[in-house]
Amino acid sequence: MQVTYNSFLPTYKTPFGAVTCQTPVQFTLSVQTVTPVKQIDLCVAHDGQWDDEQALPLHPISPTMYTTTFIPTQVGLYFYYFRIETATTTAYYGCVDGGYGGPGVQYVLREHVQMYQLTILKAVETLPKWYREGVAYQIFVDRFNNGNADGHVNAPKPNSFIYGQLTDRPLYVRDEHRAILRWDFYGGNLRGIIAKIPYLQRLGVTIIYLTPIFEASSNHRYDTGDYLKIDPVVGDLTDFDDLVTALHQAGMRLILDGVFNHVGVDSKYFNQAGHYPTVGATQSITSPYYSWFTFIHYPHDYDSWWGIRDLPTVDKDDPTYRDFIFGKPDSVIDYWTQRGVDGWRLDVADELPDDFIAGIRRTLDRYPDKVLIGEVWEDASHKLAYGMRRHYLEGGGLQAVMNYPLRRLIIRVLNGTLTPAEWWRELMTLKENYPATTFHFNFNNIGSHDTPRILTMLAEDRQRLRLAVQLLLTLPGVPCLYYGDEALMMGGKDPDNRAFYPWQDADQAQVQFVADWANWRQRHPWLNTAHFIPFYLADYGIGYLYWQADQTVMVIVNVTTEPRTMTSHDLKLSGVPLKLAQAIQHCLVTQTLGGTQLRLIENFT
Amino acid sequence: MQVTYNSFLPTYKTPFGAVTCQTPVQFTLSVQTVTPVKQIDLCVAHDGQWDDEQALPLHPISPTMYTTTFIPTQVGLYFYYFRIETATTTAYYGCVDGGYGGPGVQYVLREHVQMYQLTILKAVETLPKWYREGVAYQIFVDRFNNGNADGHVNAPKPNSFIYGQLTDRPLYVRDEHRAILRWDFYGGNLRGIIAKIPYLQRLGVTIIYLTPIFEASSNHRYDTGDYLKIDPVVGDLTDFDDLVTALHQAGMRLILDGVFNHVGVDSKYFNQAGHYPTVGATQSITSPYYSWFTFIHYPHDYDSWWGIRDLPTVDKDDPTYRDFIFGKPDSVIDYWTQRGVDGWRLDVADELPDDFIAGIRRTLDRYPDKVLIGEVWEDASHKLAYGMRRHYLEGGGLQAVMNYPLRRLIIRVLNGTLTPAEWWRELMTLKENYPATTFHFNFNNIGSHDTPRILTMLAEDRQRLRLAVQLLLTLPGVPCLYYGDEALMMGGKDPDNRAFYPWQDADQAQVQFVADWANWRQRHPWLNTAHFIPFYLADYGIGYLYWQADQTVMVIVNVTTEPRTMTSHDLKLSGVPLKLAQAIQHCLVTQTLGGTQLRLIENFT
Repeated sequence: MQVTYNSFLPTYKTPFGAVTCQTPVQFTLSVQTVTPVKQIDLCVAHDGQWDDEQALPLHPISPTMYTTTFIPTQVGLYFYYFRIETATTTAYYGCVDGGYGGPGVQYVLREHVQMYQLTILKAVETLPKWYREGVAYQIFVDRFNNGNADGHVNAPKPNSFIYGQLTDRPLYVRDEHRAILRWDFYGGNLRGIIAKIPYLQRLGVTIIYLTPIFEASSNHRYDTGDYLKIDPVVGDLTDFDDLVTALHQAGMRLILDGVFNHVGVDSKYFNQAGHYPTVGATQSITSPYYSWFTFIHYPHDYDSWWGIRDLPTVDKDDPTYRDFIFGKPDSVIDYWTQRGVDGWRLDVADELPDDFIAGIRRTLDRYPDKVLIGEVWEDASHKLAYGMRRHYLEGGGLQAVMNYPLRRLIIRVLNGTLTPAEWWRELMTLKENYPATTFHFNFNNIGSHDTPRILTMLAEDRQRLRLAVQLLLTLPGVPCLYYGDEALMMGGKDPDNRAFYPWQDADQAQVQFVADWANWRQRHPWLNTAHFIPFYLADYGIGYLYWQADQTVMVIVNVTTEPRTMTSHDLKLSGVPLKLAQAIQHCLVTQTLGGTQLRLIENFT
Repeated sequence: MQVTYNSFLPTYKTPFGAVTCQTPVQFTLSVQTVTPVKQIDLCVAHDGQWDDEQALPLHPISPTMYTTTFIPTQVGLYFYYFRIETATTTAYYGCVDGGYGGPGVQYVLREHVQMYQLTILKAVETLPKWYREGVAYQIFVDRFNNGNADGHVNAPKPNSFIYGQLTDRPLYVRDEHRAILRWDFYGGNLRGIIAKIPYLQRLGVTIIYLTPIFEASSNHRYDTGDYLKIDPVVGDLTDFDDLVTALHQAGMRLILDGVFNHVGVDSKYFNQAGHYPTVGATQSITSPYYSWFTFIHYPHDYDSWWGIRDLPTVDKDDPTYRDFIFGKPDSVIDYWTQRGVDGWRLDVADELPDDFIAGIRRTLDRYPDKVLIGEVWEDASHKLAYGMRRHYLEGGGLQAVMNYPLRRLIIRVLNGTLTPAEWWRELMTLKENYPATTFHFNFNNIGSHDTPRILTMLAEDRQRLRLAVQLLLTLPGVPCLYYGDEALMMGGKDPDNRAFYPWQDADQAQVQFVADWANWRQRHPWLNTAHFIPFYLADYGIGYLYWQADQTVMVIVNVTTEPRTMTSHDLKLSGVPLKLAQAIQHCLVTQTLGGTQLRLIENFT
């Protein structure tokens, strides 16, 4: 028995990928068998409702092709496979190990079957044009630029350290138990960002995403002390307003980091050390913030994020906390959004209940053209967090997530630990699993403050770095550059990935290279609504194709270190109109591409 | 048999204490016995020459008194005891356990005898008037005052940390093996000292002793990088010259810290990291500095101070090193002394050969009115270092040492861990063992950068602190205040004892108290040449007496916490003219002294 199915191809499944509820989806299977087919079923169950698995019989439309239509009635995920019964045997067909889409495999036993994912949306999201067509730049504020003429650090905190020189490598000052003893600061601030707007414009950046800027104890400020106050180390409210004004005048937008799962132990709300004049939760059970926290033994034993006692967890179900963050007219989200913030990135979204995220989204939707992004490290379409399926992207929640899976694909394919075929399948799976708006407007990165720097991940190979930058800036999604990667900054894991931007020593050729590609991206907004198809070339190349009307763009990358002559024989391409496929083949047979090089061909038809 | 001897009293030994070579010393013993005395010998041997012990017979001068005269012929230490033979027995008389002078004890067995010390000098030192009559103030430069108007730190070093606030507690930034990862700086500098000269003058200070100021990596700068360069963190040569000029114009003097036992691993001379343009000893065996160091395996294994690899030990016998430090006309000592340095404190003097110290002294003696002080932690008259007896103070070497033994006496008697009688015996022993010039002009302290702060040592008892300050400023020796003790700074061991001077928060009453007593000391230069006799009052009081011509000063301290009525019965006093003794007794019977209080009575006769 030979069964053929490929969830990526319209021949077998249509429409492609995620659909809204009640959208009919047609499944078609090719079965060639000596023994006559008795019954073929599409077996489909809604996520978790395994006892309610439906069996939809497929009917033949040709001697070997069988089809059925499934109408999803619930938002979320469905999982499916096929059961093929002949007179002599029962076979199963599901996806390949790992849950990837595309061609699957036959299984002999039901209990071994891995199921395909079908994503069902509540609604198709719309995202603002500035975001869809933007190039973003993530700034770890303490490490970017100091806007004071004499370089002094604004309002250094008590018991903190200032780096002797801006070229010093970052270092955590820890005790023998690895706990932080003193926080370390370089002194980057909001005025420093304002001063670098011309630089960012030259780089082709249109959106800046700032790590937290509200008052906190640490240099990263993920330990919020006061949600309604700019940390004096980075500036004051005037500096913030000036930054917003300057960015908007430059046609740029601002995304802030919203850290709502936990607060700092040294905060208005918890106030363990009593540094704030407010009555914090640890000071009295009559504190207005007492109900925000979960005390095991009051006041010293309390829920904290991953057991980090500096970060007491907030109860996201507490109504007063919800009111404070997004519920009341003067909520945190309202306050800063009214001051000009264009979007929010929600820290540790996995820790935030879906309805908490939805609440933030509702508040944000009262303002035009805002965007809500979440920190999720995996394929967010099927993320399980704490045993619960998350519903980030099905409509009314997040509009995008930090696209770490894409970062991993890029790094692995460039480092040779992922074959071009695997790269292709995994990228196509993301395209299939995600809502189209997510895939096309996901918040892509090749590094952040939470990862080693891209140049370090690529074994300090500058050629590979250039490929990574080119991929980031030509793939679907909103590219987000991590500050300083364009200056050839290197660094391992935190804090090494958070060095100060080397303004005196940045590699200008690389800066220009990044600028050239970011500007190229800016000049091609049509890519965002174009057809997109990845392909691969035997064991050495990856590529992808955009087309829309009479415009085409093809990107081809030789991921090996040797030059390769590309032949149409090597091309593994599917889902592309015949004429385009022929045009690509025509390009390939005449070209040799050097090792670790990318070629971009525009309007090749 | 009753034997009486007391090395402190002229009845038994004269002259008192240390003498120059060839000075006859008369020893007298009182022996009362039933059995007739057959022979009494003074048994005396030069330090270490135990096989050449001499036995000098004592002859009777009364029925119970026996005497002899010993003429020392060698510089250094002699040790002595008495042997008394009667018809029936042989007895020995030596000093009490611990090597203290004063009354001794009889011993039955020769091998149990502890010997008295007799110090023999090559020459009597003279010390400059400014030093003899001075009040010193030790400044740990990074922690005293920043003279920049905007408070910026001069030339922060690469990979160093600056404290966020001057009120931060000091902290070493260490790795998991306790090694220093980054040096920490507050930014005190030479201009900061200049700015505080008026303050120091108000405090009654006339000498400042600075911890090292030559270029180095650390904040303490005991790891010299360049002996001929002011560390840019503290200033430049102009700042230094300005400091010297300003001090001298204010009638003040400057003592520098000479660190000649070792250098920094990151120095012109060793240059392990290659930060200096010179060819250092680790870079080539043709380096001019190669012979300064002792390599076990070149270049990575080398002699270092106490195994601290950051501090390679210098071979003090190397002629080129000696030339560099003191031998050549442009030596380190010459260079800075010519620029106006008034004295030097030699770091870790125990590590410096006697003839190395003598060489520095010879160089220094070419300039008028200089002083050479050594860091020695014990009674330097008999210090054994690395199994060798040291000859610091016998003439031509050090003129004074840091008087840590006196510090310990003060702390212990005030904390009640030393009885007044013990205090008296130990202080008298120092007076006896040291050359008179050393005892009277030793470099006294009650705390330094190498000890916990005095207030902390005294259990944070401010009354006891006041007593300690009064003792320091009224006892013989040149008092050296440790910066900030007058501001009630507290702190345990290094680095806690090196916090920044709390200029915004100093206790002005205490500052004034210290100033009052320092100024009192300034107004009594005659004390330096006066007779000095300590005494004690039963189990509750200590005191001492100065007299010269018709001037007298008596200091009495009740070291308990309860008021005590002082009676002449309690007074344990010896070696004082009868008329004075009577006057003191007269004072005492009429007075009650509160707990932890000091009374100073001038011209009581």
